[in-house]
Amino acid sequence: MSVQFEDVKIAHERIKDYIHRTPVLTSKTLNTIANAELFFKCENFQKAGAFKFRGATNAVFSLSNEEAQAGVVTHSSGNHAGALALAAKQRGCPAYLVMPVNATKVKKEAVLGYGGKIIECGTTMSSREEVVQQVIADTNAALIHPYNDERIIAGQGTATLELVEEIDDLDAVLAPVSGGGLLSGTAIAAKGLKKDILVYGCEPKNADDAYQSMQSGKLQSIDNPQTIADGLRASLGDKTFAIIKEFVDGIYLVTEEEIITAMKYLWERMKIVVEPSGSVGLAALLRSKPELYGKRVGIILSGGNVDLGNSPF
Amino acid sequence: MSVQFEDVKIAHERIKDYIHRTPVLTSKTLNTIANAELFFKCENFQKAGAFKFRGATNAVFSLSNEEAQAGVVTHSSGNHAGALALAAKQRGCPAYLVMPVNATKVKKEAVLGYGGKIIECGTTMSSREEVVQQVIADTNAALIHPYNDERIIAGQGTATLELVEEIDDLDAVLAPVSGGGLLSGTAIAAKGLKKDILVYGCEPKNADDAYQSMQSGKLQSIDNPQTIADGLRASLGDKTFAIIKEFVDGIYLVTEEEIITAMKYLWERMKIVVEPSGSVGLAALLRSKPELYGKRVGIILSGGNVDLGNSPF
Repeated sequence: MSVQFEDVKIAHERIKDYIHRTPVLTSKTLNTIANAELFFKCENFQKAGAFKFRGATNAVFSLSNEEAQAGVVTHSSGNHAGALALAAKQRGCPAYLVMPVNATKVKKEAVLGYGGKIIECGTTMSSREEVVQQVIADTNAALIHPYNDERIIAGQGTATLELVEEIDDLDAVLAPVSGGGLLSGTAIAAKGLKKDILVYGCEPKNADDAYQSMQSGKLQSIDNPQTIADGLRASLGDKTFAIIKEFVDGIYLVTEEEIITAMKYLWERMKIVVEPSGSVGLAALLRSKPELYGKRVGIILSGGNVDLGNSPF
Repeated sequence: MSVQFEDVKIAHERIKDYIHRTPVLTSKTLNTIANAELFFKCENFQKAGAFKFRGATNAVFSLSNEEAQAGVVTHSSGNHAGALALAAKQRGCPAYLVMPVNATKVKKEAVLGYGGKIIECGTTMSSREEVVQQVIADTNAALIHPYNDERIIAGQGTATLELVEEIDDLDAVLAPVSGGGLLSGTAIAAKGLKKDILVYGCEPKNADDAYQSMQSGKLQSIDNPQTIADGLRASLGDKTFAIIKEFVDGIYLVTEEEIITAMKYLWERMKIVVEPSGSVGLAALLRSKPELYGKRVGIILSGGNVDLGNSPF
């Protein structure tokens, strides 16, 4: 059974006392550049620095007491790991985080700061999954997959639930797509509240598995793609792809250069720190999108966890 | 006649439809580091990227129609220039901005973007003032001094008016000090609303003219001091010093390293872009301040205009 709009509403009730209700910001300068009226949902201000805390909190607080005692385990290049560690801390249960060796220092430090236990793995998806299975065998911890999980999808959808409830008459919502947890939740929430709203995924050209999957109608994956958007290296899962295929109107591809330019606008003009992965929604609008001209467009700024020592500027 | 609390209230009425009422943000992580409850007034989100727009708008909209026609002129290393250019644009009058050759590129671009006319000068205060006099001789423009001006002082005070009205029971307010327009306005607004509130100025050790002036009781100045806080290179004026001497409880000095560390916290933890000059309030709290332990402390984050290509990280 797939995720329904009702599940997003239940998730919001479950997590609303643990998460930040993040602000929606606007910028006249960026409206002019995009030729549209933009509403930025600032999940970079979310606890643990990204929307991932929503799904993680929903998953952790969905566990029975017995399950929670054994703890939770996941694999993640960073934001889901930090989010799950903090969510587990709030429930008082152990968290085991399988992270690739190339995860950024700031993301690892965040996990440790939240009391999570890091287990390193290689950079491929198969290496991640092997190590996770080992942890489960050792601890009996509950696997909280970073995206291919109904509880995660419903939790991530709550950002758009807040956005579409708060901003009247949105015509479209743009969200980054990686494993698809955010994009599938976004689509369910947006279309549950407003039937004719358009939903677009935004994805680096260098990691275009969602675009390829939508084009071919079959789930495609890319192993270890190279992009500055380190949070967008994963490929869709079967659960997220099924939802995206049904509810998402298209995938916008963005170049590495467009990602950096969009980040620069967000930092220099809006004075907010957004990570490369979080900037792809604005990046998509740097190339002409006539279908959105003059429209009211929501953009999910998905996270703000950056290593300043490793900035592209 | 010096600036009164009533003047700050009148300034707020005059400018409130032109400025942003900026948000007040909090951070549990930074509270723990400072051992105090911190309330950050985000003037980095102000129009033109800094609190300077408040004073500039108050000054420009205080002019008669005849005065406004001839335009306005000032000297500034950056933020006051951008602010005055935008304020003048809103009133529809010309703005002449005398800027030192070492002003940052992003600040010059902002001025040009607002339709201001830049006239370059040397890096010393005497060079700035000479060029300003030449512009006045040529255009009859009204001089809007960046800080030693009652209209500017009253306008800058409106940030603290909003902060102290919004956050109950503040014990202290910290503001950067350079020429003293912000700090003197802050003191008048804070003590006008709450008699026993403490007000501290925060200043780079490398540009400690306000500290020296307070110690000696006599106005001191430093020509062309070197600090990463490029907005804090000016020295107090006679009008701002008179107010600061009467109403400010002390000056905290901060090192260059403390400024950079504070900036890093604001960017990485709070996900907001604050310039070096805007970070000195938090920088002051990185060194133990027992008089503020457990207190409710307002901090003015004065601006967010940075050249990302020239960041200290």
